[in-house]
Amino acid sequence: MTTGVWLIGARGSVAVTSMVGATALRAGLAEPLGCVTELPELAGPALPGLAELVFGGHDISDITLEKKVEDLVAAGVLPARLAAAVADQLDGLQRELRPVPTASTQAEVARLVAQDIDDFRRRRGLSQVVVVNVSSTEPIFESGAAHSSLAALEEALAQGSPLPPSSLYAYAAFNAGCAFVDFTPSTGARLPALRELAEREGLPYAGHDGKTGETLVKSVLAPMFAMRHLRVRTWSGTNLLGGGDGANLADPAANAAKATSKQRVLAETLGYQPQGTSHIEYVDDIGDFKTAWDLITFSGFLGTQMRMEFSWHGCDSALAAPLILDLARITAAAHAAGRGGALTELAFFFKDPIGEVPHALAEQWATLAAFVRGLHAPA
Amino acid sequence: MTTGVWLIGARGSVAVTSMVGATALRAGLAEPLGCVTELPELAGPALPGLAELVFGGHDISDITLEKKVEDLVAAGVLPARLAAAVADQLDGLQRELRPVPTASTQAEVARLVAQDIDDFRRRRGLSQVVVVNVSSTEPIFESGAAHSSLAALEEALAQGSPLPPSSLYAYAAFNAGCAFVDFTPSTGARLPALRELAEREGLPYAGHDGKTGETLVKSVLAPMFAMRHLRVRTWSGTNLLGGGDGANLADPAANAAKATSKQRVLAETLGYQPQGTSHIEYVDDIGDFKTAWDLITFSGFLGTQMRMEFSWHGCDSALAAPLILDLARITAAAHAAGRGGALTELAFFFKDPIGEVPHALAEQWATLAAFVRGLHAPA
Amino acid sequence: MTTGVWLIGARGSVAVTSMVGATALRAGLAEPLGCVTELPELAGPALPGLAELVFGGHDISDITLEKKVEDLVAAGVLPARLAAAVADQLDGLQRELRPVPTASTQAEVARLVAQDIDDFRRRRGLSQVVVVNVSSTEPIFESGAAHSSLAALEEALAQGSPLPPSSLYAYAAFNAGCAFVDFTPSTGARLPALRELAEREGLPYAGHDGKTGETLVKSVLAPMFAMRHLRVRTWSGTNLLGGGDGANLADPAANAAKATSKQRVLAETLGYQPQGTSHIEYVDDIGDFKTAWDLITFSGFLGTQMRMEFSWHGCDSALAAPLILDLARITAAAHAAGRGGALTELAFFFKDPIGEVPHALAEQWATLAAFVRGLHAPA
Amino acid sequence: MTTGVWLIGARGSVAVTSMVGATALRAGLAEPLGCVTELPELAGPALPGLAELVFGGHDISDITLEKKVEDLVAAGVLPARLAAAVADQLDGLQRELRPVPTASTQAEVARLVAQDIDDFRRRRGLSQVVVVNVSSTEPIFESGAAHSSLAALEEALAQGSPLPPSSLYAYAAFNAGCAFVDFTPSTGARLPALRELAEREGLPYAGHDGKTGETLVKSVLAPMFAMRHLRVRTWSGTNLLGGGDGANLADPAANAAKATSKQRVLAETLGYQPQGTSHIEYVDDIGDFKTAWDLITFSGFLGTQMRMEFSWHGCDSALAAPLILDLARITAAAHAAGRGGALTELAFFFKDPIGEVPHALAEQWATLAAFVRGLHAPA
Repeated sequence: MTTGVWLIGARGSVAVTSMVGATALRAGLAEPLGCVTELPELAGPALPGLAELVFGGHDISDITLEKKVEDLVAAGVLPARLAAAVADQLDGLQRELRPVPTASTQAEVARLVAQDIDDFRRRRGLSQVVVVNVSSTEPIFESGAAHSSLAALEEALAQGSPLPPSSLYAYAAFNAGCAFVDFTPSTGARLPALRELAEREGLPYAGHDGKTGETLVKSVLAPMFAMRHLRVRTWSGTNLLGGGDGANLADPAANAAKATSKQRVLAETLGYQPQGTSHIEYVDDIGDFKTAWDLITFSGFLGTQMRMEFSWHGCDSALAAPLILDLARITAAAHAAGRGGALTELAFFFKDPIGEVPHALAEQWATLAAFVRGLHAPA
Repeated sequence: MTTGVWLIGARGSVAVTSMVGATALRAGLAEPLGCVTELPELAGPALPGLAELVFGGHDISDITLEKKVEDLVAAGVLPARLAAAVADQLDGLQRELRPVPTASTQAEVARLVAQDIDDFRRRRGLSQVVVVNVSSTEPIFESGAAHSSLAALEEALAQGSPLPPSSLYAYAAFNAGCAFVDFTPSTGARLPALRELAEREGLPYAGHDGKTGETLVKSVLAPMFAMRHLRVRTWSGTNLLGGGDGANLADPAANAAKATSKQRVLAETLGYQPQGTSHIEYVDDIGDFKTAWDLITFSGFLGTQMRMEFSWHGCDSALAAPLILDLARITAAAHAAGRGGALTELAFFFKDPIGEVPHALAEQWATLAAFVRGLHAPA
Repeated sequence: MTTGVWLIGARGSVAVTSMVGATALRAGLAEPLGCVTELPELAGPALPGLAELVFGGHDISDITLEKKVEDLVAAGVLPARLAAAVADQLDGLQRELRPVPTASTQAEVARLVAQDIDDFRRRRGLSQVVVVNVSSTEPIFESGAAHSSLAALEEALAQGSPLPPSSLYAYAAFNAGCAFVDFTPSTGARLPALRELAEREGLPYAGHDGKTGETLVKSVLAPMFAMRHLRVRTWSGTNLLGGGDGANLADPAANAAKATSKQRVLAETLGYQPQGTSHIEYVDDIGDFKTAWDLITFSGFLGTQMRMEFSWHGCDSALAAPLILDLARITAAAHAAGRGGALTELAFFFKDPIGEVPHALAEQWATLAAFVRGLHAPA
Repeated sequence: MTTGVWLIGARGSVAVTSMVGATALRAGLAEPLGCVTELPELAGPALPGLAELVFGGHDISDITLEKKVEDLVAAGVLPARLAAAVADQLDGLQRELRPVPTASTQAEVARLVAQDIDDFRRRRGLSQVVVVNVSSTEPIFESGAAHSSLAALEEALAQGSPLPPSSLYAYAAFNAGCAFVDFTPSTGARLPALRELAEREGLPYAGHDGKTGETLVKSVLAPMFAMRHLRVRTWSGTNLLGGGDGANLADPAANAAKATSKQRVLAETLGYQPQGTSHIEYVDDIGDFKTAWDLITFSGFLGTQMRMEFSWHGCDSALAAPLILDLARITAAAHAAGRGGALTELAFFFKDPIGEVPHALAEQWATLAAFVRGLHAPA
């Protein structure tokens, strides 16, 4: 069951760490730490093997994989030893990367994107391909009448550029018969027109915004306060990060999209919105190792005031990359099992999951495990 | 369904905060924050009302409640406003407190303790009484042949002093027909002879060591690392605390009992024991507001090294007191429902729970909620 | 040597804490913690005694001192015991507070402000009065031709409103023959025209922006890195604060003024500007107890990357109030000693001190101590 | 002015980082970060150049420098790039390392040690040699009558083993006509008999216990609290460290020596001893990157309670190694200038400096700078 993973943003840190990592794991050079599909609760026959994943993708950048790997080693994301061991496989990976097609209409761009994916599938003899968006975060997008139905969208596409890039990729993926995963906070498949298309075609999709650091911690601490009937008064966070994602998030519009996504877990698990915001700041020097600091103040018995602080020093790409492999494996298995539409059972992976789903990590885990068990042993 | 709560260590910070708090809640002076039995998931008809709890207890200290409340206000545990509002009810509470009986044999002490409890039950017309140990932590106790069966124990009691105080109270409680809860890391009911007695009498018991601060946080963070397949390498904690519990824990023997209890959650939820210890240090000035700091280092994808720190600044008495009310209510309801022996479903409340039970907070919560629902709606 | 302290913003938290605190100290109800003029290195005959300070002031608010003290007790700034002990002296303090005069021109407002101060001096028989600005932070102000000389300013004042409020108060103070201290980051006396006026009148002035928390810590840590030849790469801070000052600083313009002031110490003590900013966020719940968190990353021998984090949980009013007393005492003594113009020797107290002065706290302390010794024992 | 640096513990992390670092600096491969003698305030003609330092030493270990460098690269202390660049110079360095001599009496060991040093001096044509102790921390040593005078000591040496190893090295160094620096908390030259010897021979010595991390921060924060008249109530620290030094400090006796040394700065700069201790814990996984966390609680104006926390994540060897170079340079210059006895002006470098000296870093810096200026421009 050889499965393709088509990465949007394929020369970025997360994508390259995923590809290099999968290559290293296949060669037995590292343990699959960070890959939840390798835990006994999720492993099983329905998931394509790590060794069966084949990578390709689009990127607007033309940085070589050699250069990117060198940067990731310098940044401490990739161990020098592993980078050296997989060096002779980078050319092979690179041959499957394509520039983003350009054309005068979005309809035409979508057609060219789908064709690239289709070529990849045929050339590599893949049973299926999962398209995963790991490109830069877009500004918040306001949808309109053109997005309310597939018919309206196709009419608009014929005439102009109604879609943000992430949604254009989702459209192209569905047209190519592929599942789609949005690992960013961008709009992606979250438009009525695209849901209609995915459901019509029986294609699964998942998102949004991979839960890799501060929000992951929030998704266990906030339920803890709720289960103990402690009232959170303030939850205020600062995220310092550099690297490509940091530079992009320094843009106020992208920052707003991200900060909104990061706050949702609190209201959903506490049942109310405490004071405080989630602040993102770009610090070039920090690179891919993000430092987040959160202050939580809370009231207990008889109103006693208490507080907690945490700081998290994590490598975003190293936290995200194994989840890309997990999502590709699970989404491919769901596709193979005939599951179409939004995969709400994958909320475990996301800051801003699709649907009315639990935001507490333990519940998300239980839901995910049950879902994957169902894939392994269909009724 | 008026229910008695007999507190061992009744003039200590936790006990007095519980009693004053229950009085204030009954008068509508505060919200029941910190009381998990007031959450919609647990509330229901089987639990005695907060207003139906009647308090009594033993203590070796003879500090007056007036003085203790004054100390708790000065320490910031009790709000001055609430203390003033309940001042005229302290005499009534105090009338139900007794000195710890003394006698030449433990058998006789146990008889006198049971008699005090029985007098309390009859005098106040209580349907049942739950005995709760909130006294100081004892040194680690090595059990022996005398504790291996009830017969052996009763023979030993006739001749000497085979039991640590916490176990003597459990023995007396069971003889008085009462449920027993151990909120400390002491031995309490954890002896085969006492289990035999509780089961013979159909009396429930629960413990050990209330989970109020650092360990509570561990019980959600450690599962988070496990669910994400991140390998924890080091988990090292420092607990700075003053107050009576702090002074007692400065004693190396008590400290050892506590530190062991605090570490168990890691091995149980991670499946391995990371490096590092949990260090307890007495700092008089800090009083009842404990500060804990933990460092966690972990490995992710391809071995990337990451880290997290948290500091917790919590008021131990304010965190413990509402749980005393919760435990009394649930244990009384279990007793009323005919449930005898170890209440392993109450692991949610404890650092070192009885039995082979989950240590992840979310699983403990699910177990607890199912158990309490069963009490509300018996099959 | 009875000395007046005329507070601009006299009903605010800092001013009221200063007045109540001085009253409590006079009555022997508390130790003079936080007052640096009570340290042996600074104490001496030239400084007016704490008991000799007499307070008055302007405020646009008409909150009563009773209400404000009640708020400060609730916020944990003033101990209830002290508030009760000084309650009967609030009326006396309040009688010396005045609303901010209004008039159609700033020239006329200045005349009325000066008259209020002058009345206070005569009524209370004061040898001198120090005017201290503790009102809200103003937006950054751009000075122009009208501020370049006293003649130009007076011409502009006759026709319009060329001055921000803090500078209008400085102008009025100098016209009333008073020394002026700006404890805020506002413009205050920092205009050529006002410097000319102060120097002509032989009146001292000091500022700007009291150094009470995060910047205080920076002023010792940054020199530590410099003295050890460690290169600071990132210094990024987050300040969470509520209260009146917090609400005002949430305004982006005021925030900008403050953040600029807070960064200066780094470039001045390190000799270069590391990456990172100082971020201010308003969190109502946190009130007067500010929490600041700073991350510092630095390079050492052979480029080794290291890091430090600190969090500071301080009560801004309790940190500022004793410095107000210190500044009033020292400035009054300088005035009495015939010292006019900018008191650059007082940099110890300020985030953004006037003049080309050291920013390392220890050097500022040495300068201050020498200056005060000179006042005690004039050559 | 070629100067020898004879390292006791020459195959340990600090020593090897010093030697490799000096080699890399000489080759222009890195900036001299961390070397305070390279700051403009201290640089000058009296100090031997970094390129003029020649290394040798003793060690009880026989690990090769190749292996040790490999370990230091793996631990993140030495950059792989630099290690590779100096690889061909390790043999040369290694040729100057000697095993610790053994003999039946300490007198004879001392003679052999001195002979090794003397051979080094002659072989390399060195104007002088500074002996620096960077070996493991010894247990606390109680001195006695045998240490009270040089005569008594020599009598005792003829018969037995009256000296701890660090003092035996000091004795040997002085007999070899060398200056001695103790970078550890061990006894070293701190015995009346050794002081007598150093003074008789006109040889300078310095110590004790290099100030590299938590204590460095304390030496600026504690004066800050003192200068602001804020009363520190609690100062409690936890140090987690691995590596060789960590393993050794896990030994309770060595730990006691270190913890005592670390606390001294507080009493000396505050004028009183706050509550709390400095706790050291060995965590193998953490290696040479020490994490220290300190909690400071303090009282301000009117008794307001405030707090500060910091965590320090520093590489001990990278912090210590440049100071070894600094100390060798300054001590050699002092020796050359005819300065004998305790160099109390070098307190800047030490946790537990010799003599009644200031413990505030800024004062220590001023003293050091004046001392070094005096060496550059003798009167």
